Amino acid sequence: MQQMKWDTIAIVGVGLIGGSIGLALKQRRLARCVVGIGRRHSRLARARRLGAVDSTTIQLERGVADAELTVVCTPVEQIADFVCRAAKHCPPGALLTDAGSTKARIVSQLNGALSSGAVFVGSHPLAGSEKQGVAHARADLFDNSVCVLTPKRGTPQVAVARVRRFWEALGAGVVQMTPEAHDRALAFTSHLPHLLAAALAGSLPSKLFDLAATGFRDTTRVAAGDPDVWAGIFTHNRQATLVALQEFQRHLARYRSALERADAGRLRKLLIQAKQNRDALGR
Amino acid sequence: MQQMKWDTIAIVGVGLIGGSIGLALKQRRLARCVVGIGRRHSRLARARRLGAVDSTTIQLERGVADAELTVVCTPVEQIADFVCRAAKHCPPGALLTDAGSTKARIVSQLNGALSSGAVFVGSHPLAGSEKQGVAHARADLFDNSVCVLTPKRGTPQVAVARVRRFWEALGAGVVQMTPEAHDRALAFTSHLPHLLAAALAGSLPSKLFDLAATGFRDTTRVAAGDPDVWAGIFTHNRQATLVALQEFQRHLARYRSALERADAGRLRKLLIQAKQNRDALGR
Repeated sequence: MQQMKWDTIAIVGVGLIGGSIGLALKQRRLARCVVGIGRRHSRLARARRLGAVDSTTIQLERGVADAELTVVCTPVEQIADFVCRAAKHCPPGALLTDAGSTKARIVSQLNGALSSGAVFVGSHPLAGSEKQGVAHARADLFDNSVCVLTPKRGTPQVAVARVRRFWEALGAGVVQMTPEAHDRALAFTSHLPHLLAAALAGSLPSKLFDLAATGFRDTTRVAAGDPDVWAGIFTHNRQATLVALQEFQRHLARYRSALERADAGRLRKLLIQAKQNRDALGR
Repeated sequence: MQQMKWDTIAIVGVGLIGGSIGLALKQRRLARCVVGIGRRHSRLARARRLGAVDSTTIQLERGVADAELTVVCTPVEQIADFVCRAAKHCPPGALLTDAGSTKARIVSQLNGALSSGAVFVGSHPLAGSEKQGVAHARADLFDNSVCVLTPKRGTPQVAVARVRRFWEALGAGVVQMTPEAHDRALAFTSHLPHLLAAALAGSLPSKLFDLAATGFRDTTRVAAGDPDVWAGIFTHNRQATLVALQEFQRHLARYRSALERADAGRLRKLLIQAKQNRDALGR
């Protein structure tokens, strides 16, 4: 893997993901200058103190002025707008990418919107946590993670290759698919689990809280994620999430029917298949 | 908390839970002799090597002969039978308890079955993991955990108090409820999450395994549990599990409807309530 050295990289939104990108860039000496862009001075100051960024600004135009690469790490519903605005002010030929959990709507919102010679390549690093904020950022967040790239047909291969090497340099393995294929897949592997975890956590009567042990906590952990962020993700990807939910409910009906018929053999078979899948994923 | 010293304690089934009880008893010097009882010599030898038990036997009658307390840590469908057999061979006035994840059926199976003067008090330590076997046993497994006792009406208070102190000495906080109330509660806090995790893991197409990151892994972690053990639990507690499942599905329908109507405000409200519940549980 060829490591590259960037001069200036701008990060819009320096929370868990943006902060971790900054920390990784600095610790691996991949960029001379990392600029953090955000709305709140206090949060930006914290990112600077933690070493996630070298300089900060609340003015997007100034922050991206020298950035060869701008990474937009905001909630999904703001990404297209920030990319558009950043594209107008970054250097000619600069690259733009994001870290959004949905891709189809963002890519279509940007379709034809970048007239400045800047190139956008959609990214989704599959890393993160239910925790929020730069205080939880980690330089190794992307180690052994997967990052999905969703270039449009017609995106210059050299731009795709540079964004790919950017994520690889942070420790991620990169896969490439269409925005729509990404959204269908992530509906199943990320958005559906979040929906189920939230529905399970939300339906627990408070009198039973004391009896919720490790199993319940693991199963509902992601439900502690930011409701605004997740409402945005579900809104962006609601069609594919509904399809994944339907598929899940079909499968759940098999368990329900086995329970209703007290069919221990059938239950056991279902549980064996579930365990095989879960074991295949590793820890 | 008054700590007590036992002479001999027998553990039937020296896996994760039985092994952790043994390790905790030895490390805290709570019992002079811990006897491990099981079916396989190799597994018992491993428990002895790990220091979870002092001596081992595959003969239940011999193993419990001197045991003031016998703790049955087998899969739920075998518990009543082991308790009955142990009661016939343990010293007069000895105590028996278990670590089963269900209680109503076990307690009713034992109703009137113990004629020997031994007393059974049902227990369910809410500790454990998707991992199996004594190799994963830990002396601190019960630290800050909750253990539910489900004595029948008429069980001598002195026996209940001794079993309570036993679990407290291992680090657990003890709560007391009827076997039926236990099963209704655990259907919601443990058996339902397992069902959902298994259904989710089982419905994941293998081509998407690479895109299942932390969120999916957390949400489905318990699905790696032993299918035989869990088929037994579901069979014992199928009625209450079906009730919990129905309640969950009612709640899930709210999410589904908000998604179908693209009602981001409603989704956000549901996610906020879920986060409040999940945050209240702590890590």
